[in-house]
Amino acid sequence: MLKTYQYKDLTKEQIQELVNRNTDPNNAIQDTVLQIINEVKTVGDAALKSYAKQFDKVDLEKLYLGQEEIDELASTISRDQMRALEIAFQNIYKFHQTQLKRERTVETMPGVKCWREVRPIEKVGLYIPGGSAVLPSTLLMLGIPARIAGCREIVVCSPPQNNGKINGFVAYCLKLLQINKIYLVGGAQAVAAMAYGTESIPKVNKIFGPGNQFVTKAKSLIQGLTDVSIDMPAGPSEVLVIADDTCNPAFVAADLLAQAEHGIDSQSILVCTSAEIAKNVEAEVEKQLEVLPRKELAEKAIQNSYFVITENLQEAMDFSNLYAPEHLILETDEWKPLINKVLNAGSVFLGHLTPESAGDYASGTNHTLPTSGFARSYSGVSVDSFVKKITFQHISEEGLQQIGSTVEILAELEGLQAHKNAVSIRKKD
Amino acid sequence: MLKTYQYKDLTKEQIQELVNRNTDPNNAIQDTVLQIINEVKTVGDAALKSYAKQFDKVDLEKLYLGQEEIDELASTISRDQMRALEIAFQNIYKFHQTQLKRERTVETMPGVKCWREVRPIEKVGLYIPGGSAVLPSTLLMLGIPARIAGCREIVVCSPPQNNGKINGFVAYCLKLLQINKIYLVGGAQAVAAMAYGTESIPKVNKIFGPGNQFVTKAKSLIQGLTDVSIDMPAGPSEVLVIADDTCNPAFVAADLLAQAEHGIDSQSILVCTSAEIAKNVEAEVEKQLEVLPRKELAEKAIQNSYFVITENLQEAMDFSNLYAPEHLILETDEWKPLINKVLNAGSVFLGHLTPESAGDYASGTNHTLPTSGFARSYSGVSVDSFVKKITFQHISEEGLQQIGSTVEILAELEGLQAHKNAVSIRKKD
Repeated sequence: MLKTYQYKDLTKEQIQELVNRNTDPNNAIQDTVLQIINEVKTVGDAALKSYAKQFDKVDLEKLYLGQEEIDELASTISRDQMRALEIAFQNIYKFHQTQLKRERTVETMPGVKCWREVRPIEKVGLYIPGGSAVLPSTLLMLGIPARIAGCREIVVCSPPQNNGKINGFVAYCLKLLQINKIYLVGGAQAVAAMAYGTESIPKVNKIFGPGNQFVTKAKSLIQGLTDVSIDMPAGPSEVLVIADDTCNPAFVAADLLAQAEHGIDSQSILVCTSAEIAKNVEAEVEKQLEVLPRKELAEKAIQNSYFVITENLQEAMDFSNLYAPEHLILETDEWKPLINKVLNAGSVFLGHLTPESAGDYASGTNHTLPTSGFARSYSGVSVDSFVKKITFQHISEEGLQQIGSTVEILAELEGLQAHKNAVSIRKKD
Repeated sequence: MLKTYQYKDLTKEQIQELVNRNTDPNNAIQDTVLQIINEVKTVGDAALKSYAKQFDKVDLEKLYLGQEEIDELASTISRDQMRALEIAFQNIYKFHQTQLKRERTVETMPGVKCWREVRPIEKVGLYIPGGSAVLPSTLLMLGIPARIAGCREIVVCSPPQNNGKINGFVAYCLKLLQINKIYLVGGAQAVAAMAYGTESIPKVNKIFGPGNQFVTKAKSLIQGLTDVSIDMPAGPSEVLVIADDTCNPAFVAADLLAQAEHGIDSQSILVCTSAEIAKNVEAEVEKQLEVLPRKELAEKAIQNSYFVITENLQEAMDFSNLYAPEHLILETDEWKPLINKVLNAGSVFLGHLTPESAGDYASGTNHTLPTSGFARSYSGVSVDSFVKKITFQHISEEGLQQIGSTVEILAELEGLQAHKNAVSIRKKD
């Protein structure tokens, strides 16, 4: 039986406790990860090969696959699978393409012109998890915005399979992205390699992508150790479903389980407007769980989850905004008026026929999203994540007359005489 | 005599060494800062009062000033100063206002609609340095985009003066921003207070603003310890000036000194197309330095800086892009064709009459910018920094037919059966 809370009975503190994620700071693995980082930094490629042997059980002669090998692997997947990856590619491309915008120049005073221009981050590193769960969809979600942004160098790292290769789906996505090299490095060592560079692997400016706790820890550590930045802090995946009487309990259950199968630390939360709905959804969860291949994982995750019963949809939205879910599904006929009430969430799925899995793969939106409450201050990955916006300004003679004395007064009141001089000397000329 | 390098004589490694900032990771102060953070977290207001006594030499009865006290302090500044702050406010507002944009909906397939909506970060914390250097301009640079974004709660912290108050310029900026409370807390303890919340000070979702090494260290630490995010990593301020024969050496020198007076760790770099220019600029630097009130600071900073002589403007831009300066000033008649060549920089100042100090105070652009090479992957603060972009999607019956099998195939090939089910169960219905 799932833990069920009545919203009206919860104190502020109890709500706070429910919305707090148990974000394990992983201090236990910090030393291990730091050691890996140092080893890669000082020894380079040789360290990467030795880790491949130790962790991936494979002897690598070289640390990458080139165009020919990628083509060969890509050709092993079925026509239908190719077609599905192509459709996903097209939809993701179509949606992300609209995110690059030229901004207009603002003349803040006569002769004082200011504007922003977009520039790609030159070198980006994409980490694609491998091993048991191979995620070609993640390669599309990171590679497409990097391509649209115009990044000059896209470095892709993924752990090798036992045979020293990668799987055909990932290879096919590389082809779609016109990336002709993939580095066979996984885990914390991949993050370290892209942060410092090795003989084979180029140093990058920003590292993207999900991963296990070692990858996550390495990303957070290199952020403090180097001048390399990261996409966002990562935690276990999560969904919050809001449902009312109009919902189909079987759909709701399917969505909760889709989240739960990711791993035992996933959270699937249902906020609904009656105990009846909760009961019906739970019955469906039990039924659908039985036939899942990843039943064991999903069952444990479901045990970590909970239901909240509210009086109405407004209360449900209030709870959701406090929780700030990575994924929010609104399974109600009344989804339209709720849109403006969504204040904190990564990605929102509207109505009965919009499952999260559509957005995970193919609808066009990105699936790299803020977890663990970070949706309060972070956005998901987009083309914005792969560019900088640089401000430019030009001041004419007229502009200098207009703005000069203002700058002089402000520099003076802050006690910065040389700042004032930089204007005065120009005014005099 | 300033260190001067001939670009063509430099090896790749020497260039790399020149563009590397000596970013001190401040591990020396880490324990002190961690102790302050823990004290504030566990003891709250009492700890803040005790630090005020210790660091700011003041006994505080309450930890904030309210509307009445702010009004009174604001009325002590001159009419001219008020007017200058108002003009800066207007220009900054005008420029930042254009950064909030509605995005259009994309129908990636018939019946599959995706879009992004902007939501303010609900609670933001602004740190305004105080003590010897009081920076009302920083309050405008952070407060204005927060207001435009629509942040619900704007918490401002600044260290108290000896008299337990703040200065009148900061007070006047608070009035312009319609913020009616300021917390009298400085240093690492202010960052900790906004990250955890105390009896008086609200916990926020994101912390902004520059500060000394303790503030900077605290910001980087709370990023790993809490669910609170920060604007960007901070380092000493820096300018890179590109100049050719068309430059006025006196203007160039004034700009280098304006940077140098910030502190002894500031970097002022000149990249110019002849040794003659370097010589003339240096003579001007020595002359102008003599009369500066902050001469001692500026002199030391200038000693840390260097000149690079290149063959032409293209080489100068190449060096600048490797350095990735916080501020870049192009003091040449030929600034127009250089715009597209700027790949890495925080903010760019074009031509002979556009000093950095205009952008520091009043032209409209933001002065909170990436330092220490972070301009390779970070943008300066803007309205974007105070909002999230949330993706929404809606799939109709037609849309589900269009996209369903693609999602099913992709979920299956990633081995995620429950993800597939979430679509299949809806298709069947």
